[in-house]
Amino acid sequence: VVEPDAVPEEGYAFDRATSVRPEATGRRTPAGAVFEADIDGGWAIGAKPNGGYLLAMLARGAVAAAGEVEGLEHPHPLSASAHFLSAPDAGPAEVHTEVLRRGKRLSQVRSRLVQDGTARVEAVFTLGRLDPDADAWWDDVPVPPDTTPEASCTRLSGTGSPSGLEVPLMGHVDLRLDPAVTGFAVGAPTGRGEVRGFLRFADGRPPDPVSLLLAVDVLPPATFDLGSTGWVPTFELTAYVRRVPARGPLLVRHRARLVESDMVDEACDVWDARGRLVAQATQLAGVRVAGTRPAPRR
Amino acid sequence: VVEPDAVPEEGYAFDRATSVRPEATGRRTPAGAVFEADIDGGWAIGAKPNGGYLLAMLARGAVAAAGEVEGLEHPHPLSASAHFLSAPDAGPAEVHTEVLRRGKRLSQVRSRLVQDGTARVEAVFTLGRLDPDADAWWDDVPVPPDTTPEASCTRLSGTGSPSGLEVPLMGHVDLRLDPAVTGFAVGAPTGRGEVRGFLRFADGRPPDPVSLLLAVDVLPPATFDLGSTGWVPTFELTAYVRRVPARGPLLVRHRARLVESDMVDEACDVWDARGRLVAQATQLAGVRVAGTRPAPRR
Repeated sequence: VVEPDAVPEEGYAFDRATSVRPEATGRRTPAGAVFEADIDGGWAIGAKPNGGYLLAMLARGAVAAAGEVEGLEHPHPLSASAHFLSAPDAGPAEVHTEVLRRGKRLSQVRSRLVQDGTARVEAVFTLGRLDPDADAWWDDVPVPPDTTPEASCTRLSGTGSPSGLEVPLMGHVDLRLDPAVTGFAVGAPTGRGEVRGFLRFADGRPPDPVSLLLAVDVLPPATFDLGSTGWVPTFELTAYVRRVPARGPLLVRHRARLVESDMVDEACDVWDARGRLVAQATQLAGVRVAGTRPAPRR
Repeated sequence: VVEPDAVPEEGYAFDRATSVRPEATGRRTPAGAVFEADIDGGWAIGAKPNGGYLLAMLARGAVAAAGEVEGLEHPHPLSASAHFLSAPDAGPAEVHTEVLRRGKRLSQVRSRLVQDGTARVEAVFTLGRLDPDADAWWDDVPVPPDTTPEASCTRLSGTGSPSGLEVPLMGHVDLRLDPAVTGFAVGAPTGRGEVRGFLRFADGRPPDPVSLLLAVDVLPPATFDLGSTGWVPTFELTAYVRRVPARGPLLVRHRARLVESDMVDEACDVWDARGRLVAQATQLAGVRVAGTRPAPRR
């Protein structure tokens, strides 16, 4: 039995930063409920709020909108697909929800982040309840066998990056990249199109299904390992949350799959501290590539 | 130079079956345009319209809604993420669209299939224009090297399946599964969780970006190859269309990744007749598994 860490009196930072509350005036759109939220500039890369952080906030709106019917709650996002429309800023925002289906076992909810009257992120969720004791029947996604142990990885700092960009997000998460894939930071990418590392919340918050939506979007882009260091705007991100993660660090891996002129897709896998695959994701993002074309991983 | 097949006088079946038209009365929802459509029972598995077929119809609504601005059209779905809410029947339906963002290079549009006043499929698209001559800069997804040539594969029939289910869809597509992965049909799945095959339209229609949305959802589930033969309802499907496919057959591969108590995720890759990766997809679906647990592929 692992002793839980002491919960800070004010709660965990991630829970505060992703919280939504019913609008004071009880305003509704033609489709459904409106929640108020505050986008916290601490969960950002430069001035841009992290996409996984925004997705977690939208999931909270979706869960609240699906509510409780006949004593049944659907607290876990099983699937989340998000299209990113325009980056919001830190500050007040609204989450507009619409319950598309409310079943006994599953609910499906649309959740939209709106700021200054403009839709910023459009996401749809399948919600349900994961059984913490469920085991895999079959899986074909092994933990990368040659991963450096967490204790031998160095924590990413939010300052002093090669690009000069401040990353306040790195104050909230304790992200330790595997040194085998951090050659890009010193101009020596491996050309394998892979990044991986260990992730914890800096304040000791244990991982849970909602926080896996952050986990799938928090590493540097896998294209850094191909020699591209430009900003990678995400157009679409889909995450599947498959299990309730165990306490302890998550191992997160991103792999680039196809890079053509100006887009890349990446596949992400997340394992918990017990080595169980707990989440998977793909994203399609813009990219600028130039120079030598590395050989495929194969 | 490949001579184009003669186009049938009435057009191709897929184009007719996925067409949408502005509602005669010009009705709009608070959010956007409404299109009329007819769900064609010929593109179904049993009585259930195929999900990829419905997604292609929703893409047509999205492209029409995004329209043309300053002479720029965005005819190609680059990403599509769909949540399946409740299966529609063959017959009249509506496509409700909302343009979420209209940019010079990309548009993003929500498209919802509504039948009998009930939302059936909720999809969001990123639309743009793929350059037919663009080449990959890097890719890490090789054509399965041991694939049986198309000429040595047998076309799937729409009748006489082990389950007794009629599959009218197989009259519209010419789908030839690799015999290396069809052991499930005679009770001898390989246990590798993979199905693959060659896909053409039966009437000679060449593949295009919209038809790739059908291609990623037309094979039998990869879980058949794990010994599960039950119906696999899809909750979420995300497709990335990366290139304009060349004329000729598509090679489509599905692989199961994680099967736990009652859900499976599958990854799909599609190559064109020139061996170029043209589309990728993932889906999360319900599944019932029982009996021996096959060893992972690894």
